[in-house]
Amino acid sequence: MFFLKLSDVGEFGLIKKLAAGCVNDFSTIVEGIGDDAAVLQPGKGQLLVTSDMLVEGVHFLTGKITMYQLGYKSIAASLSDIAAMGGKPRHALVSLAIPGNMAVEEIEELYLGMKSILSRYTVNLVGGDTVKSPVFTIDVTLLGETGPTGSVLRSGARPGDAVMVTGTPGASAAGLELLLNPGKWTGNLSLEDQEWLLAAHLTPEPALKQSATLVQMNCVTSMIDISDGIAGEINHICDRSGVGAEIYADKIPLSDTVARVAGLAGKNALDWALYGGEDYQLLFTVPAGEAQRVIDVFAAGRLGPVAVIGCIVEEKQGRKLVMSPEESVSLTSSAYNHFVEDR
Amino acid sequence: MFFLKLSDVGEFGLIKKLAAGCVNDFSTIVEGIGDDAAVLQPGKGQLLVTSDMLVEGVHFLTGKITMYQLGYKSIAASLSDIAAMGGKPRHALVSLAIPGNMAVEEIEELYLGMKSILSRYTVNLVGGDTVKSPVFTIDVTLLGETGPTGSVLRSGARPGDAVMVTGTPGASAAGLELLLNPGKWTGNLSLEDQEWLLAAHLTPEPALKQSATLVQMNCVTSMIDISDGIAGEINHICDRSGVGAEIYADKIPLSDTVARVAGLAGKNALDWALYGGEDYQLLFTVPAGEAQRVIDVFAAGRLGPVAVIGCIVEEKQGRKLVMSPEESVSLTSSAYNHFVEDR
Repeated sequence: MFFLKLSDVGEFGLIKKLAAGCVNDFSTIVEGIGDDAAVLQPGKGQLLVTSDMLVEGVHFLTGKITMYQLGYKSIAASLSDIAAMGGKPRHALVSLAIPGNMAVEEIEELYLGMKSILSRYTVNLVGGDTVKSPVFTIDVTLLGETGPTGSVLRSGARPGDAVMVTGTPGASAAGLELLLNPGKWTGNLSLEDQEWLLAAHLTPEPALKQSATLVQMNCVTSMIDISDGIAGEINHICDRSGVGAEIYADKIPLSDTVARVAGLAGKNALDWALYGGEDYQLLFTVPAGEAQRVIDVFAAGRLGPVAVIGCIVEEKQGRKLVMSPEESVSLTSSAYNHFVEDR
Repeated sequence: MFFLKLSDVGEFGLIKKLAAGCVNDFSTIVEGIGDDAAVLQPGKGQLLVTSDMLVEGVHFLTGKITMYQLGYKSIAASLSDIAAMGGKPRHALVSLAIPGNMAVEEIEELYLGMKSILSRYTVNLVGGDTVKSPVFTIDVTLLGETGPTGSVLRSGARPGDAVMVTGTPGASAAGLELLLNPGKWTGNLSLEDQEWLLAAHLTPEPALKQSATLVQMNCVTSMIDISDGIAGEINHICDRSGVGAEIYADKIPLSDTVARVAGLAGKNALDWALYGGEDYQLLFTVPAGEAQRVIDVFAAGRLGPVAVIGCIVEEKQGRKLVMSPEESVSLTSSAYNHFVEDR
């Protein structure tokens, strides 16, 4: 089979091949790909902007994820940041640093994955850059917009608030476990369970619908997405809000499937939820009296699991993981440090 | 001397060290670095957005440029894109992929260079990402805004328009020549000339003032910045505008200093201007009757050299470089193809 190499088509040839199907909402674009900068029509809300960089061998392994999945996931991660602000995603820019011997078909597959999720959420691909590099690197910038009530920050949590979480955290880590041990526990898991866990890791769904619902309910005091595990994220909220927190280990909603994989692998499902990362669920706080309303609205709207997992306390009370009425441990942030050599 | 390695401070430690001095215009920032996304107050104009990626060994050589200069230049290149649209730069996001053994001091120096030029043009640094990678990579996203007359695109050139250029193209290529041959022609050049050429390559000044003046004059029909040499850029304007062009070789404003370095190095100064790239000057078109007014306004405003170098013709007349009344050659785009292995 013949593969067209990037060195054959060059940067401008590649851009031409990829520029089709990038616009999903013409009303907000004055000039898309093809000029020195994209020209966009801003909405009425505040502007949200976030960048996420992914490096081969550090954030992904090309043998373990298809280019389509990688494209999908890299956009999903940025959409999740916009969800965490209570915003609507509008435009994406994708910068790629590509090894010269990579096949054009691979990059096209990557963009197919990106365009698939972008079109689902009516987000435009309006620009970026493509350059040569020895190491395949993706940088996604996402522009979004807030509604009339503005953005939901990490800094608004107050003592007495309930801490809530969407989905079943740890599913992404369980999916990674399956990926790293292909076939090892296949006999113990249904095909549906395997597919669900792999999708949780490879093609995660950003919680945009859930976020929009929460914004509409107008009760959220702080919000963050779980890219680095619940423990790391609750520490970010505490840092920015100047509060403490108690998280109840037995309230963290672990799926039976995740628990089963953890058992098979000799791992701890609670650890995955607390420190696993890449779940792209929402961690948020609401006044305690609003928690039941959130649970009811999620159930009525079929928005998936949502649960109270703890409460916000005074700063001086610290940050605790309550294991039982008798035992609680310090809730240390163990967020991934990309620069530590042996991780 | 002890250097703090990135693996010692981690991503969050690094962000804390770099977050100071990032805001130059508080009026447009609702929430800067520290949440899932930056929250910005959009202006009244259209939104401009551009991304540029730079890879060590491909776009820069760390031994030939200081980290301060590299930071300065990487922002300058993106500011130049905003200038080329006739816009005002507002906010920058910087994503860095950094080798784990790089010293924190190096990254701080890089940011010093970035902050220096950002503060000069009252642009905020509002976010980005820092990750680990075997290859040092910088991706800059710049957000800007147009004035009431909107953006200046590449697509508005019409037959009869004059083609004009700011500055003296080729200066960046001459500076690179000096850099690659340290000390070789030092005796033949004054210290001022050497400094000017090195600055043209290492710390280029984006033509934002010139762009703002042109927008105010309201006569520019198309505009682009010269990042890939005049030949490549005029071809982009012709492609997008559906026109042809004649560029007069003897009208291209070459500085005496650039010509002298070319002579010493056995190179062709005209080639540098046409194909050298990284000049970050503006190439633009105006109705022929407006050209003299542009020259007068630039002189009065001390905005540096500006010259008519050709004219726009019908598409079917093609794109020509006129060498003399008898000789003209096809103006082929020789824009840098990053993916060709041997370049």
